[in-house]
Amino acid sequence: MNLSHPHSSGTIVRCRRLLEPALREVVSGLHPWGARMVAFAMGWAGLDGREQDADGGKGLRPAITMLSAEAVGGTAEDALPAAVAVELVHAFSLAHDDIIDRDELRRHRATLWKAYGVGPALLTGDALLALAVSRLAARPEAMPYLSAALIELVQGQTADMAFENRPWSGPDVVTIEEYAEMAAGKTGGLLGAAAATGVALGGAPELADRMWTMGRDLGVAFQIVDDVLGIWGDPRLTGKPVHNDLRRDKKTLPVLAALASGGPAARELAAVLATGAADEESVRRAAHLVEEAGGREKARALADRYLDSALGVLDECLPEATELRDVCHSLVDRVS
Amino acid sequence: MNLSHPHSSGTIVRCRRLLEPALREVVSGLHPWGARMVAFAMGWAGLDGREQDADGGKGLRPAITMLSAEAVGGTAEDALPAAVAVELVHAFSLAHDDIIDRDELRRHRATLWKAYGVGPALLTGDALLALAVSRLAARPEAMPYLSAALIELVQGQTADMAFENRPWSGPDVVTIEEYAEMAAGKTGGLLGAAAATGVALGGAPELADRMWTMGRDLGVAFQIVDDVLGIWGDPRLTGKPVHNDLRRDKKTLPVLAALASGGPAARELAAVLATGAADEESVRRAAHLVEEAGGREKARALADRYLDSALGVLDECLPEATELRDVCHSLVDRVS
Repeated sequence: MNLSHPHSSGTIVRCRRLLEPALREVVSGLHPWGARMVAFAMGWAGLDGREQDADGGKGLRPAITMLSAEAVGGTAEDALPAAVAVELVHAFSLAHDDIIDRDELRRHRATLWKAYGVGPALLTGDALLALAVSRLAARPEAMPYLSAALIELVQGQTADMAFENRPWSGPDVVTIEEYAEMAAGKTGGLLGAAAATGVALGGAPELADRMWTMGRDLGVAFQIVDDVLGIWGDPRLTGKPVHNDLRRDKKTLPVLAALASGGPAARELAAVLATGAADEESVRRAAHLVEEAGGREKARALADRYLDSALGVLDECLPEATELRDVCHSLVDRVS
Repeated sequence: MNLSHPHSSGTIVRCRRLLEPALREVVSGLHPWGARMVAFAMGWAGLDGREQDADGGKGLRPAITMLSAEAVGGTAEDALPAAVAVELVHAFSLAHDDIIDRDELRRHRATLWKAYGVGPALLTGDALLALAVSRLAARPEAMPYLSAALIELVQGQTADMAFENRPWSGPDVVTIEEYAEMAAGKTGGLLGAAAATGVALGGAPELADRMWTMGRDLGVAFQIVDDVLGIWGDPRLTGKPVHNDLRRDKKTLPVLAALASGGPAARELAAVLATGAADEESVRRAAHLVEEAGGREKARALADRYLDSALGVLDECLPEATELRDVCHSLVDRVS
């Protein structure tokens, strides 16, 4: 992920240096076969099991956890169990989502199921989740937030999947409100847990509920940006093929906003999408129409609104937390 | 499941009556589509979503949880969150195991993935697990046992899967000790958690570690009986096709014990299995040779040894707990 925010990359690297040894230690307790698949999923190893330094994600969620702990006067180490748990849950969700969405490419490499098969990848996801839960099992001040994030994650993912069978026009069209609820669950829950567990383990559990809300808003902004990158992002930077969402009838925000605009471009878009938009030409035409109908602009505006709402909570609760604020900002100001 | 133990069926019914409303309430919070798949997985509904009363399993694990609480002076209600969690984890593991093993039939019906597809079934499993964790997230006296069971479950399942690539003879053959460790994880962990969380919530957390050990031993006995039923069980009672394990190179205890006996039947068995044993005739021949080489008898004896060990712990810790003892006994004395 390329971070365009100028202040945050040093912070992220510092957090990542703390996180990785802790993550590796947790994983080392797994069955050797399971550990090998986890190492591949994390970007630590290639298919042959040899060490490599692939792009395994920058660890933004655990950085939020550690910085949240620091922002309330604790240390990053205080929050390390939660930071590890949050990163493990993230890896779990990628492993399973790629199976569900039949995605074959992530971060410029084969996805876990594509590399090892559906059964082993499914089981590896379960292992990651089990390890995550074990980190906080005896921490009742933090565990409920991780648990709530798990529920939100599956609820959001289920809603997203159910959206695929909804029409592009008419009374059953997916509304922006339904989208926001789905995104708050699918993407926001874990960001909420990242921030809430951080302040809880950092010594300010009384702030955890507000940080949970902050993270959920941040998640909606993050998901909208993800949708935008899925249509107009550069695959060389994102590591994923472009236009996949359009091909799969995914109800992404730019498309929903374009359809809701109601002009001639919106009507043509609905017609193109209704035919299935399987061939390259109609996919490209659909992307063009989304932009013409104002979907891209509206998506950006809505992402900014949710970001502002999240930053507003931060400014109120933790006005001195500039590092945390920068990282949250960089989640939405990104190109990959 | 037909319980051959004469005293336990009334107890099981009593526990199940307490459990089911609590289970249904937890599930009612899911996305409607997710709730429908869970209802199918639990045997509450058919594929059409209509209520039915299929054989959804008798709830032996949650019964152990509730009876363990009663055995230490608590009430079954005290342990209800843990009983619900344990049953949900069990349902989670069935949903995912059936995908991993490509099993198409369970309890006389299509498996969840066969009925709804791999992606939705995977996600339903995740939902069941998330709900389970949420039940105990704020109960640090019980959560670590549920968490340990999750780790054991994936470790055991990974070992079981890795065994499929091991040979039937030579220095890399799977040993009885390796089998026991796998079964203690795959099957024993959750039974351990069932008993340990029961006493913990019932008011005797100091007994939880010993009950965890008891449950793990019980699990090895349970798994061996499962292996025996997989070869010689009646499909009309088990609800699953016979001989599936033999077809899939599963390293089950009767086969491992037969091979370890070293006589002429064992040698012929190794030769038949080495060819892949795909056709009906060689599968039937293999089953016959397992019995001839003493595999069935040895499996029964080993199951009894683990059962005795589990009951020994029970007699020591909770000598008055006759209902609990009967239910544990019935887990091993079963024909389905």
